[in-house]
Amino acid sequence: MRESELLEHIYRRSEGLAGASPDLVVGPGDDCAVLRQPGGGLLLLTVDQLLGGVHYKPGTPVDRVARKAVARSVSDIAAMGGEPRWALATAMLPKDYPEADELFDRMAYWASRWGCPLIGGDIGSGPGELLLTVTIGGEAHPDRGPVLRSGAKPGDRLFVSGSLGGSLQSEHHLLFEPRVALGTKLCDTLGRDLHAMIDLSDGLGRDGARLAKASGVRLVIDAERIPRRDGVTSWRNAAGDGEDYELLVAIAPGREAPEGLIEIGEAAEGSPRCEIVDSGEKIDAGEMGWDH
Amino acid sequence: MRESELLEHIYRRSEGLAGASPDLVVGPGDDCAVLRQPGGGLLLLTVDQLLGGVHYKPGTPVDRVARKAVARSVSDIAAMGGEPRWALATAMLPKDYPEADELFDRMAYWASRWGCPLIGGDIGSGPGELLLTVTIGGEAHPDRGPVLRSGAKPGDRLFVSGSLGGSLQSEHHLLFEPRVALGTKLCDTLGRDLHAMIDLSDGLGRDGARLAKASGVRLVIDAERIPRRDGVTSWRNAAGDGEDYELLVAIAPGREAPEGLIEIGEAAEGSPRCEIVDSGEKIDAGEMGWDH
Repeated sequence: MRESELLEHIYRRSEGLAGASPDLVVGPGDDCAVLRQPGGGLLLLTVDQLLGGVHYKPGTPVDRVARKAVARSVSDIAAMGGEPRWALATAMLPKDYPEADELFDRMAYWASRWGCPLIGGDIGSGPGELLLTVTIGGEAHPDRGPVLRSGAKPGDRLFVSGSLGGSLQSEHHLLFEPRVALGTKLCDTLGRDLHAMIDLSDGLGRDGARLAKASGVRLVIDAERIPRRDGVTSWRNAAGDGEDYELLVAIAPGREAPEGLIEIGEAAEGSPRCEIVDSGEKIDAGEMGWDH
Repeated sequence: MRESELLEHIYRRSEGLAGASPDLVVGPGDDCAVLRQPGGGLLLLTVDQLLGGVHYKPGTPVDRVARKAVARSVSDIAAMGGEPRWALATAMLPKDYPEADELFDRMAYWASRWGCPLIGGDIGSGPGELLLTVTIGGEAHPDRGPVLRSGAKPGDRLFVSGSLGGSLQSEHHLLFEPRVALGTKLCDTLGRDLHAMIDLSDGLGRDGARLAKASGVRLVIDAERIPRRDGVTSWRNAAGDGEDYELLVAIAPGREAPEGLIEIGEAAEGSPRCEIVDSGEKIDAGEMGWDH
Protein backbone atom coordinates (compact mmCIF):
# COMPACT_ATOMS: atom_id res chain seq x y z
CA MET A 1 0.00 0.00 0.00
CA ARG A 2 1.25 3.46 -0.82
CA GLU A 3 1.52 6.02 1.93
CA SER A 4 -0.93 8.32 0.16
CA GLU A 5 -3.66 5.64 0.07
CA LEU A 6 -3.19 4.80 3.72
CA LEU A 7 -3.35 8.50 4.60
CA GLU A 8 -6.63 8.81 2.68
CA HIS A 9 -8.01 5.98 4.77
CA ILE A 10 -6.86 7.64 7.99
CA TYR A 11 -8.28 11.05 7.03
CA ARG A 12 -11.65 9.54 6.14
CA ARG A 13 -11.70 7.62 9.41
CA SER A 14 -10.85 10.82 11.28
CA GLU A 15 -13.72 12.86 9.92
CA GLY A 16 -15.88 12.09 12.96
CA LEU A 17 -13.09 13.02 15.34
CA ALA A 18 -13.97 16.68 15.81
CA GLY A 19 -17.32 15.77 17.36
CA ALA A 20 -15.65 13.41 19.81
CA SER A 21 -12.99 15.94 20.85
CA PRO A 22 -14.42 19.37 21.48
CA ASP A 23 -10.92 20.84 21.86
CA LEU A 24 -9.77 19.62 18.45
CA VAL A 25 -9.59 22.45 15.90
CA VAL A 26 -7.68 20.61 13.14
CA GLY A 27 -7.23 16.82 12.99
CA PRO A 28 -5.12 14.59 10.74
CA GLY A 29 -4.42 15.93 7.25
CA ASP A 30 -2.69 19.27 7.80
CA ASP A 31 0.93 20.02 8.74
CA CYS A 32 0.03 19.96 12.44
CA ALA A 33 -2.93 18.97 14.56
CA VAL A 34 -4.40 21.98 16.39
CA LEU A 35 -5.91 21.82 19.86
CA ARG A 36 -7.61 24.46 21.94
CA GLN A 37 -5.72 24.80 25.24
CA PRO A 38 -7.60 24.90 28.53
CA GLY A 39 -6.51 28.44 29.37
CA GLY A 40 -6.66 29.86 25.82
CA GLY A 41 -4.31 29.80 22.88
CA LEU A 42 -3.90 27.03 20.33
CA LEU A 43 -1.45 24.13 20.67
CA LEU A 44 0.16 22.87 17.44
CA LEU A 45 1.31 19.25 17.43
CA THR A 46 3.42 17.38 14.89
CA VAL A 47 5.61 14.28 14.74
CA ASP A 48 8.01 13.05 12.05
CA GLN A 49 10.21 10.03 11.57
CA LEU A 50 13.77 9.88 10.25
CA LEU A 51 15.07 6.51 9.08
CA GLY A 52 18.70 5.73 8.32
CA GLY A 53 19.26 4.75 4.70
CA VAL A 54 15.97 6.37 3.64
CA HIS A 55 16.07 9.96 4.91
CA TYR A 56 19.86 10.21 4.97
CA LYS A 57 22.76 8.24 3.52
CA PRO A 58 24.99 5.93 5.57
CA GLY A 59 28.02 7.87 6.78
CA THR A 60 26.14 11.14 7.35
CA PRO A 61 27.66 12.92 10.37
CA VAL A 62 25.65 12.44 13.57
CA ASP A 63 25.17 16.18 14.00
CA ARG A 64 23.43 16.43 10.62
CA VAL A 65 21.21 13.44 11.32
CA ALA A 66 20.18 15.02 14.62
CA ARG A 67 19.66 18.39 12.93
CA LYS A 68 17.44 16.99 10.19
CA ALA A 69 15.34 14.94 12.63
CA VAL A 70 14.47 18.09 14.59
CA ALA A 71 14.26 20.45 11.62
CA ARG A 72 11.62 18.41 9.79
CA SER A 73 9.18 18.78 12.67
CA VAL A 74 10.07 22.44 13.25
CA SER A 75 9.24 23.01 9.58
CA ASP A 76 5.69 21.69 10.15
CA ILE A 77 5.19 24.27 12.90
CA ALA A 78 6.56 26.97 10.56
CA ALA A 79 4.06 25.91 7.88
CA MET A 80 1.24 26.87 10.23
CA GLY A 81 2.84 30.22 11.08
CA GLY A 82 3.49 29.01 14.63
CA GLU A 83 6.42 28.92 17.02
CA PRO A 84 7.93 25.70 18.39
CA ARG A 85 7.89 25.41 22.21
CA TRP A 86 8.96 21.88 23.29
CA ALA A 87 10.18 18.63 21.80
CA LEU A 88 10.12 14.92 22.63
CA ALA A 89 12.35 12.45 20.79
CA THR A 90 12.58 8.70 20.42
CA ALA A 91 15.50 6.68 19.11
CA MET A 92 15.57 3.05 18.10
CA LEU A 93 19.32 2.55 18.02
CA PRO A 94 21.12 -0.13 16.04
CA LYS A 95 22.85 -2.70 18.29
CA ASP A 96 26.28 -1.46 19.43
CA TYR A 97 25.73 2.11 18.31
CA PRO A 98 28.63 4.07 19.79
CA GLU A 99 27.37 7.58 19.00
CA ALA A 100 24.19 7.60 21.09
CA ASP A 101 25.44 10.23 23.57
CA GLU A 102 26.48 12.58 20.78
CA LEU A 103 23.23 12.00 18.88
CA PHE A 104 21.12 13.05 21.88
CA ASP A 105 23.39 15.98 22.69
CA ARG A 106 23.03 17.28 19.15
CA MET A 107 19.27 16.73 19.04
CA ALA A 108 19.03 18.66 22.30
CA TYR A 109 21.24 21.40 20.84
CA TRP A 110 19.14 21.87 17.70
CA ALA A 111 15.86 21.63 19.57
CA SER A 112 16.96 24.42 21.94
CA ARG A 113 18.35 26.43 19.06
CA TRP A 114 14.91 26.42 17.44
CA GLY A 115 13.08 27.31 20.63
CA CYS A 116 11.71 23.87 21.57
CA PRO A 117 13.93 22.30 24.27
CA LEU A 118 14.05 18.50 24.29
CA ILE A 119 12.19 17.65 27.49
CA GLY A 120 11.62 13.91 27.20
CA GLY A 121 11.70 10.81 25.08
CA ASP A 122 12.30 7.10 24.81
CA ILE A 123 15.28 4.99 23.80
CA GLY A 124 15.50 1.41 22.66
CA SER A 125 17.71 -0.71 20.49
CA GLY A 126 16.83 -3.13 17.73
CA PRO A 127 18.22 -5.01 14.77
CA GLY A 128 17.43 -2.36 12.13
CA GLU A 129 18.70 1.03 11.02
CA LEU A 130 18.64 4.06 13.31
CA LEU A 131 15.07 5.40 13.50
CA LEU A 132 14.38 8.74 15.18
CA THR A 133 11.06 10.43 15.83
CA VAL A 134 10.64 14.02 16.97
CA THR A 135 7.34 15.31 18.35
CA ILE A 136 7.08 19.08 18.64
CA GLY A 137 4.48 21.18 20.38
CA GLY A 138 4.13 24.78 19.28
CA GLU A 139 1.94 27.79 19.65
CA ALA A 140 -0.18 29.26 16.88
CA HIS A 141 0.25 32.94 16.05
CA PRO A 142 -1.77 34.77 18.70
CA ASP A 143 -3.54 37.10 16.24
CA ARG A 144 -3.65 35.25 12.93
CA GLY A 145 -4.19 31.76 14.40
CA PRO A 146 -2.96 28.65 12.59
CA VAL A 147 -2.49 29.00 8.82
CA LEU A 148 -4.07 25.92 7.24
CA ARG A 149 -3.70 24.24 3.87
CA SER A 150 -7.38 24.75 3.27
CA GLY A 151 -7.64 28.54 3.13
CA ALA A 152 -6.61 29.32 -0.48
CA LYS A 153 -9.21 31.05 -2.68
CA PRO A 154 -9.51 31.57 -6.43
CA GLY A 155 -7.52 34.68 -7.36
CA ASP A 156 -4.89 34.21 -4.63
CA ARG A 157 -1.28 34.81 -5.57
CA LEU A 158 1.08 31.86 -5.01
CA PHE A 159 4.61 32.19 -3.65
CA VAL A 160 7.46 29.97 -2.50
CA SER A 161 10.06 30.95 0.07
CA GLY A 162 13.20 29.77 -1.79
CA SER A 163 14.82 27.72 -4.52
CA LEU A 164 13.60 24.20 -5.16
CA GLY A 165 15.06 20.91 -6.39
CA GLY A 166 18.35 19.08 -5.96
CA SER A 167 18.00 18.92 -2.18
CA LEU A 168 19.62 15.50 -1.77
CA GLN A 169 22.61 16.21 -4.01
CA SER A 170 23.27 19.63 -2.48
CA GLU A 171 22.72 18.39 1.11
CA HIS A 172 20.13 21.12 1.54
CA HIS A 173 17.93 18.45 3.20
CA LEU A 174 20.50 18.21 6.01
CA LEU A 175 21.19 21.91 6.36
CA PHE A 176 17.97 23.81 5.72
CA GLU A 177 16.76 26.46 8.13
CA PRO A 178 13.09 25.89 8.96
CA ARG A 179 11.04 28.96 7.95
CA VAL A 180 9.74 29.81 11.42
CA ALA A 181 10.77 33.48 11.34
CA LEU A 182 9.29 33.97 7.87
CA GLY A 183 6.02 32.24 8.83
CA THR A 184 5.66 34.49 11.87
CA LYS A 185 6.47 37.61 9.85
CA LEU A 186 3.86 36.72 7.24
CA CYS A 187 1.26 36.31 9.99
CA ASP A 188 2.30 39.63 11.54
CA THR A 189 2.16 41.63 8.32
CA LEU A 190 -0.61 39.92 6.32
CA GLY A 191 -2.99 38.74 9.03
CA ARG A 192 -6.13 37.28 7.47
CA ASP A 193 -4.85 38.01 3.93
CA LEU A 194 -2.38 35.16 4.47
CA HIS A 195 -4.80 32.51 3.21
CA ALA A 196 -2.90 29.19 3.20
CA MET A 197 0.53 27.61 3.70
CA ILE A 198 2.17 24.19 3.46
CA ASP A 199 5.80 23.17 3.75
CA LEU A 200 7.28 21.44 0.72
CA SER A 201 8.63 18.12 1.95
CA ASP A 202 7.43 15.86 -0.88
CA GLY A 203 7.90 18.35 -3.74
CA LEU A 204 5.98 21.34 -5.12
CA GLY A 205 3.86 19.13 -7.39
CA ARG A 206 2.65 16.72 -4.74
CA ASP A 207 2.38 19.20 -1.86
CA GLY A 208 0.82 21.80 -4.16
CA ALA A 209 -1.87 19.24 -5.01
CA ARG A 210 -2.49 18.69 -1.29
CA LEU A 211 -3.04 22.41 -0.74
CA ALA A 212 -5.24 22.56 -3.87
CA LYS A 213 -7.38 19.67 -2.69
CA ALA A 214 -7.69 20.95 0.89
CA SER A 215 -8.71 24.40 -0.40
CA GLY A 216 -10.88 23.24 -3.32
CA VAL A 217 -8.96 25.36 -5.84
CA ARG A 218 -6.83 24.75 -8.92
CA LEU A 219 -3.23 25.94 -8.62
CA VAL A 220 -1.80 27.34 -11.84
CA ILE A 221 1.96 27.60 -11.65
CA ASP A 222 4.24 29.03 -14.34
CA ALA A 223 7.10 26.53 -14.92
CA GLU A 224 9.45 29.37 -15.86
CA ARG A 225 8.97 31.14 -12.54
CA ILE A 226 9.73 28.18 -10.26
CA PRO A 227 13.04 29.17 -8.63
CA ARG A 228 15.66 26.45 -9.09
CA ARG A 229 18.53 25.64 -6.79
CA ASP A 230 22.01 26.04 -8.37
CA GLY A 231 22.62 23.07 -10.63
CA VAL A 232 18.95 22.22 -11.13
CA THR A 233 18.35 22.53 -14.88
CA SER A 234 14.74 21.42 -15.26
CA TRP A 235 11.57 22.71 -13.63
CA ARG A 236 10.54 19.05 -13.33
CA ASN A 237 13.33 18.51 -10.82
CA ALA A 238 12.46 21.70 -9.00
CA ALA A 239 8.83 20.53 -8.70
CA GLY A 240 9.52 16.85 -8.09
CA ASP A 241 12.76 16.24 -6.21
CA GLY A 242 11.25 16.94 -2.79
CA GLU A 243 12.83 17.66 0.60
CA ASP A 244 12.88 21.42 -0.02
CA TYR A 245 11.31 22.47 3.29
CA GLU A 246 10.34 25.81 1.79
CA LEU A 247 6.86 27.26 2.27
CA LEU A 248 4.23 27.39 -0.46
CA VAL A 249 2.06 30.40 0.36
CA ALA A 250 -1.33 31.63 -0.93
CA ILE A 251 -2.01 35.34 -0.38
CA ALA A 252 -5.08 37.44 -1.15
CA PRO A 253 -4.73 39.47 -4.39
CA GLY A 254 -3.97 43.16 -4.09
CA ARG A 255 -1.27 42.84 -1.42
CA GLU A 256 2.35 43.78 -1.99
CA ALA A 257 4.56 40.73 -2.55
CA PRO A 258 6.20 40.27 0.87
CA GLU A 259 9.98 40.25 1.14
CA GLY A 260 11.55 36.80 0.99
CA LEU A 261 8.90 35.30 -1.27
CA ILE A 262 9.06 34.45 -4.97
CA GLU A 263 5.82 34.59 -6.96
CA ILE A 264 5.15 31.48 -9.06
CA GLY A 265 1.47 31.55 -10.05
CA GLU A 266 -2.07 31.83 -8.76
CA ALA A 267 -5.05 29.91 -7.48
CA ALA A 268 -8.05 29.61 -9.80
CA GLU A 269 -11.51 28.06 -9.95
CA GLY A 270 -11.70 24.54 -11.27
CA SER A 271 -11.27 20.99 -10.20
CA PRO A 272 -8.65 20.84 -7.43
CA ARG A 273 -5.22 20.02 -8.77
CA CYS A 274 -1.73 21.46 -9.10
CA GLU A 275 -1.18 22.47 -12.70
CA ILE A 276 2.22 23.54 -13.95
CA VAL A 277 2.16 25.41 -17.27
CA ASP A 278 5.20 24.91 -19.50
CA SER A 279 5.17 26.77 -22.86
CA GLY A 280 1.36 26.69 -22.93
CA GLU A 281 1.12 23.00 -22.00
CA LYS A 282 -0.75 22.27 -18.76
CA ILE A 283 0.81 19.43 -16.73
CA ASP A 284 -0.91 17.85 -13.72
CA ALA A 285 1.96 17.86 -11.21
CA GLY A 286 0.16 16.00 -8.41
CA GLU A 287 2.03 12.77 -9.01
CA MET A 288 5.44 14.39 -9.07
CA GLY A 289 7.57 14.21 -5.95
CA TRP A 290 8.02 11.66 -3.21
CA ASP A 291 5.43 9.30 -1.86
CA HIS A 292 7.41 8.25 1.19
CA MET B 1 25.92 0.95 25.58
CA ARG B 2 23.11 -0.06 27.89
CA GLU B 3 19.93 1.99 27.89
CA SER B 4 20.41 2.84 31.56
CA GLU B 5 23.86 4.37 30.97
CA LEU B 6 22.63 6.43 28.05
CA LEU B 7 19.67 7.64 30.12
CA GLU B 8 22.08 8.70 32.89
CA HIS B 9 23.98 10.76 30.33
CA ILE B 10 20.76 12.35 29.10
CA TYR B 11 19.52 13.15 32.61
CA ARG B 12 22.83 14.76 33.55
CA ARG B 13 22.83 16.78 30.35
CA SER B 14 19.24 17.88 31.07
CA GLU B 15 19.97 19.27 34.50
CA GLY B 16 20.37 22.79 33.13
CA LEU B 17 17.14 22.56 31.18
CA ALA B 18 14.81 24.01 33.81
CA GLY B 19 16.60 27.33 33.72
CA ALA B 20 16.33 27.51 29.94
CA SER B 21 12.61 26.64 29.92
CA PRO B 22 10.67 28.57 32.53
CA ASP B 23 7.53 26.51 31.80
CA LEU B 24 9.27 23.19 32.47
CA VAL B 25 8.25 21.68 35.82
CA VAL B 26 9.72 18.18 35.34
CA GLY B 27 12.26 17.26 32.64
CA PRO B 28 13.66 13.90 31.48
CA GLY B 29 13.82 11.19 34.14
CA ASP B 30 10.25 10.75 35.36
CA ASP B 31 7.33 8.91 33.75
CA CYS B 32 6.26 12.08 31.95
CA ALA B 33 7.67 15.52 31.31
CA VAL B 34 5.54 18.22 32.95
CA LEU B 35 4.97 21.68 31.45
CA ARG B 36 3.11 24.66 32.81
CA GLN B 37 0.40 25.61 30.28
CA PRO B 38 -0.10 29.23 29.24
CA GLY B 39 -3.61 29.49 30.71
CA GLY B 40 -2.99 27.36 33.81
CA GLY B 41 -2.93 23.64 34.47
CA LEU B 42 -0.06 21.24 33.88
CA LEU B 43 0.53 19.34 30.64
CA LEU B 44 1.96 15.80 30.98
CA LEU B 45 3.93 14.49 28.00
CA THR B 46 5.22 11.00 27.29
CA VAL B 47 6.29 8.93 24.29
CA ASP B 48 7.03 5.20 23.98
CA GLN B 49 8.21 2.88 21.24
CA LEU B 50 6.94 -0.59 20.36
CA LEU B 51 9.14 -2.76 18.16
CA GLY B 52 8.05 -5.99 16.48
CA GLY B 53 10.01 -9.00 17.67
CA VAL B 54 11.10 -7.16 20.85
CA HIS B 55 7.93 -5.90 22.52
CA TYR B 56 5.66 -8.55 21.02
CA LYS B 57 6.11 -11.87 19.24
CA PRO B 58 5.67 -12.37 15.50
CA GLY B 59 2.10 -13.44 14.80
CA THR B 60 0.54 -11.28 17.53
CA PRO B 61 -2.88 -10.05 16.32
CA VAL B 62 -2.83 -6.49 14.99
CA ASP B 63 -5.43 -5.35 17.52
CA ARG B 64 -3.20 -6.40 20.41
CA VAL B 65 -0.14 -4.73 18.91
CA ALA B 66 -2.15 -1.51 18.52
CA ARG B 67 -3.53 -1.84 22.04
CA LYS B 68 -0.14 -2.31 23.64
CA ALA B 69 1.42 0.59 21.74
CA VAL B 70 -1.21 2.97 23.12
CA ALA B 71 -1.51 1.37 26.57
CA ARG B 72 2.19 1.75 27.39
CA SER B 73 2.02 5.53 27.03
CA VAL B 74 -1.34 5.76 28.80
CA SER B 75 0.30 3.91 31.70
CA ASP B 76 2.92 6.68 31.99
CA ILE B 77 0.16 9.26 32.38
CA ALA B 78 -1.53 7.02 34.99
CA ALA B 79 1.78 6.82 36.92
CA MET B 80 1.60 10.60 37.44
CA GLY B 81 -2.04 10.47 38.53
CA GLY B 82 -3.05 12.31 35.35
CA GLU B 83 -5.62 11.82 32.63
CA PRO B 84 -4.74 11.25 28.97
CA ARG B 85 -6.15 13.86 26.57
CA TRP B 86 -4.70 13.38 23.05
CA ALA B 87 -2.38 11.06 21.16
CA LEU B 88 -0.04 11.18 18.15
CA ALA B 89 1.29 8.01 16.57
CA THR B 90 4.02 7.10 14.11
CA ALA B 91 4.43 3.85 12.23
CA MET B 92 7.44 2.63 10.31
CA LEU B 93 5.79 -0.18 8.37
CA PRO B 94 7.59 -3.17 6.90
CA LYS B 95 7.50 -3.22 3.09
CA ASP B 96 4.26 -4.73 1.78
CA TYR B 97 2.46 -4.64 5.12
CA PRO B 98 -1.18 -5.46 4.33
CA GLU B 99 -2.65 -4.63 7.75
CA ALA B 100 -1.84 -0.93 7.93
CA ASP B 101 -5.48 0.22 7.72
CA GLU B 102 -6.51 -2.11 10.51
CA LEU B 103 -3.51 -1.17 12.64
CA PHE B 104 -4.40 2.53 12.52
CA ASP B 105 -8.10 1.85 13.07
CA ARG B 106 -7.29 -0.15 16.20
CA MET B 107 -4.79 2.40 17.52
CA ALA B 108 -7.47 5.06 17.04
CA TYR B 109 -10.00 2.84 18.81
CA TRP B 110 -7.82 2.25 21.86
CA ALA B 111 -6.69 5.85 22.03
CA SER B 112 -10.31 7.05 22.09
CA ARG B 113 -11.25 4.33 24.55
CA TRP B 114 -8.65 5.68 26.98
CA GLY B 115 -9.68 9.30 26.52
CA CYS B 116 -6.88 10.48 24.22
CA PRO B 117 -8.14 10.54 20.60
CA LEU B 118 -5.48 9.98 17.93
CA ILE B 119 -5.26 13.39 16.28
CA GLY B 120 -2.14 13.11 14.13
CA GLY B 121 0.95 11.18 13.22
CA ASP B 122 3.41 10.10 10.58
CA ILE B 123 3.72 7.00 8.42
CA GLY B 124 6.67 5.59 6.54
CA SER B 125 7.93 2.25 5.39
CA GLY B 126 11.33 0.66 5.73
CA PRO B 127 13.22 -2.59 5.58
CA GLY B 128 12.90 -3.50 9.27
CA GLU B 129 10.24 -4.74 11.68
CA LEU B 130 7.13 -2.71 12.46
CA LEU B 131 8.02 0.15 14.81
CA LEU B 132 5.29 2.21 16.42
CA THR B 133 5.60 5.25 18.64
CA VAL B 134 2.76 6.81 20.61
CA THR B 135 3.04 10.29 22.13
CA ILE B 136 0.37 11.17 24.66
CA GLY B 137 -0.47 14.50 26.20
CA GLY B 138 -2.37 14.47 29.46
CA GLU B 139 -3.51 16.69 32.27
CA ALA B 140 -2.21 16.49 35.81
CA HIS B 141 -4.71 16.08 38.62
CA PRO B 142 -6.08 19.60 39.20
CA ASP B 143 -5.69 19.50 43.01
CA ARG B 144 -2.87 17.05 43.72
CA GLY B 145 -0.72 18.00 40.72
CA PRO B 146 1.62 15.45 39.10
CA VAL B 147 2.73 12.58 41.35
CA LEU B 148 6.48 12.22 40.84
CA ARG B 149 8.94 9.42 41.49
CA SER B 150 10.84 11.68 43.80
CA GLY B 151 8.33 12.27 46.61
CA ALA B 152 8.77 9.15 48.78
CA LYS B 153 9.90 9.75 52.39
CA PRO B 154 11.32 7.46 55.09
CA GLY B 155 8.41 5.81 56.88
CA ASP B 156 6.11 5.73 53.80
CA ARG B 157 4.12 2.58 53.20
CA LEU B 158 4.69 0.89 49.82
CA PHE B 159 1.95 -0.66 47.72
CA VAL B 160 1.48 -2.20 44.29
CA SER B 161 -1.76 -2.17 42.31
CA GLY B 162 -1.83 -5.83 41.24
CA SER B 163 -0.06 -9.15 40.73
CA LEU B 164 3.41 -9.18 39.24
CA GLY B 165 5.50 -11.51 37.07
CA GLY B 166 4.84 -13.81 34.15
CA SER B 167 3.52 -10.99 31.97
CA LEU B 168 4.91 -12.30 28.69
CA GLN B 169 3.74 -15.91 29.18
CA SER B 170 0.26 -14.86 30.32
CA GLU B 171 -0.09 -12.17 27.61
CA HIS B 172 -0.83 -9.65 30.37
CA HIS B 173 1.58 -7.30 28.53
CA LEU B 174 -0.88 -7.22 25.59
CA LEU B 175 -4.06 -6.99 27.62
CA PHE B 176 -3.38 -4.88 30.70
CA GLU B 177 -5.66 -2.03 31.64
CA PRO B 178 -3.60 1.11 32.35
CA ARG B 179 -4.25 2.29 35.93
CA VAL B 180 -5.66 5.71 35.07
CA ALA B 181 -8.83 5.40 37.17
CA LEU B 182 -6.87 4.16 40.17
CA GLY B 183 -4.25 6.92 39.85
CA THR B 184 -6.98 9.56 39.76
CA LYS B 185 -8.79 8.00 42.72
CA LEU B 186 -5.60 7.95 44.77
CA CYS B 187 -5.06 11.66 44.03
CA ASP B 188 -8.69 12.40 44.94
CA THR B 189 -8.63 10.56 48.24
CA LEU B 190 -5.04 10.95 49.46
CA GLY B 191 -4.06 14.35 48.10
CA ARG B 192 -0.62 15.33 49.38
CA ASP B 193 -0.34 12.08 51.39
CA LEU B 194 0.12 10.31 48.06
CA HIS B 195 3.89 10.82 48.03
CA ALA B 196 5.23 9.03 44.95
CA MET B 197 4.28 6.71 42.07
CA ILE B 198 5.94 4.93 39.14
CA ASP B 199 4.56 2.38 36.69
CA LEU B 200 6.30 -0.99 36.66
CA SER B 201 7.42 -1.55 33.08
CA ASP B 202 10.90 -2.93 33.70
CA GLY B 203 10.11 -4.90 36.89
CA LEU B 204 9.61 -4.07 40.56
CA GLY B 205 13.32 -4.40 41.29
CA ARG B 206 14.58 -2.04 38.63
CA ASP B 207 11.70 0.46 38.75
CA GLY B 208 11.69 0.34 42.55
CA ALA B 209 15.36 1.35 42.48
CA ARG B 210 14.48 4.27 40.20
CA LEU B 211 11.87 5.52 42.66
CA ALA B 212 14.32 4.97 45.56
CA LYS B 213 17.05 6.93 43.81
CA ALA B 214 14.76 9.78 42.73
CA SER B 215 13.40 10.08 46.29
CA GLY B 216 16.68 9.47 48.15
CA VAL B 217 15.21 6.66 50.24
CA ARG B 218 15.82 2.94 50.71
CA LEU B 219 12.86 0.72 49.77
CA VAL B 220 12.47 -2.33 52.01
CA ILE B 221 10.14 -4.87 50.43
CA ASP B 222 9.03 -8.15 51.98
CA ALA B 223 9.51 -10.92 49.38
CA GLU B 224 6.60 -12.88 50.82
CA ARG B 225 4.18 -10.02 50.34
CA ILE B 226 4.88 -9.39 46.63
CA PRO B 227 1.67 -10.51 44.89
CA ARG B 228 2.37 -13.08 42.17
CA ARG B 229 0.39 -13.65 39.03
CA ASP B 230 -1.11 -17.16 38.72
CA GLY B 231 1.65 -19.55 37.73
CA VAL B 232 4.48 -17.37 39.05
CA THR B 233 6.21 -19.49 41.70
CA SER B 234 9.16 -17.29 42.74
CA TRP B 235 9.25 -13.73 44.06
CA ARG B 236 12.30 -13.28 41.83
CA ASN B 237 10.09 -13.62 38.78
CA ALA B 238 7.48 -11.32 40.26
CA ALA B 239 10.17 -8.68 40.87
CA GLY B 240 12.17 -9.25 37.71
CA ASP B 241 10.04 -10.36 34.77
CA GLY B 242 8.88 -6.84 33.91
CA GLU B 243 6.04 -5.54 31.71
CA ASP B 244 3.59 -5.50 34.65
CA TYR B 245 2.27 -1.97 34.10
CA GLU B 246 1.04 -1.87 37.68
CA LEU B 247 1.69 1.15 39.90
CA LEU B 248 4.22 1.18 42.73
CA VAL B 249 2.90 3.70 45.26
CA ALA B 250 4.41 5.38 48.35
CA ILE B 251 1.89 6.75 50.84
CA ALA B 252 2.40 8.69 54.06
CA PRO B 253 2.16 6.49 57.19
CA GLY B 254 -1.04 6.62 59.20
CA ARG B 255 -3.42 6.49 56.27
CA GLU B 256 -5.83 3.62 55.66
CA ALA B 257 -4.62 1.26 52.94
CA PRO B 258 -6.66 2.38 49.91
CA GLU B 259 -8.82 -0.14 48.11
CA GLY B 260 -7.17 -1.83 45.14
CA LEU B 261 -3.65 -1.67 46.58
CA ILE B 262 -1.53 -4.44 48.11
CA GLU B 263 1.00 -3.46 50.78
CA ILE B 264 4.51 -4.85 50.16
CA GLY B 265 6.89 -2.88 52.37
CA GLU B 266 8.07 0.56 53.36
CA ALA B 267 10.51 3.32 52.62
CA ALA B 268 13.38 3.84 55.07
CA GLU B 269 16.45 6.00 55.61
CA GLY B 270 19.65 4.78 54.04
CA SER B 271 21.51 4.73 50.81
CA PRO B 272 18.98 4.73 47.95
CA ARG B 273 18.25 1.26 46.68
CA CYS B 274 15.47 -1.27 46.35
CA GLU B 275 16.00 -4.00 48.91
CA ILE B 276 13.90 -7.17 48.90
CA VAL B 277 14.03 -9.14 52.13
CA ASP B 278 13.70 -12.92 51.77
CA SER B 279 13.83 -14.95 55.01
CA GLY B 280 15.99 -12.29 56.65
CA GLU B 281 18.38 -11.97 53.69
CA LYS B 282 18.51 -8.50 52.11
CA ILE B 283 18.82 -8.60 48.31
CA ASP B 284 19.59 -5.51 46.23
CA ALA B 285 16.93 -5.85 43.51
CA GLY B 286 18.04 -2.88 41.39
CA GLU B 287 19.58 -5.04 38.71
CA MET B 288 16.58 -7.30 38.38
CA GLY B 289 14.21 -6.70 35.49
CA TRP B 290 14.57 -5.49 31.96
CA ASP B 291 17.10 -3.01 30.67
CA HIS B 292 15.45 -2.49 27.33
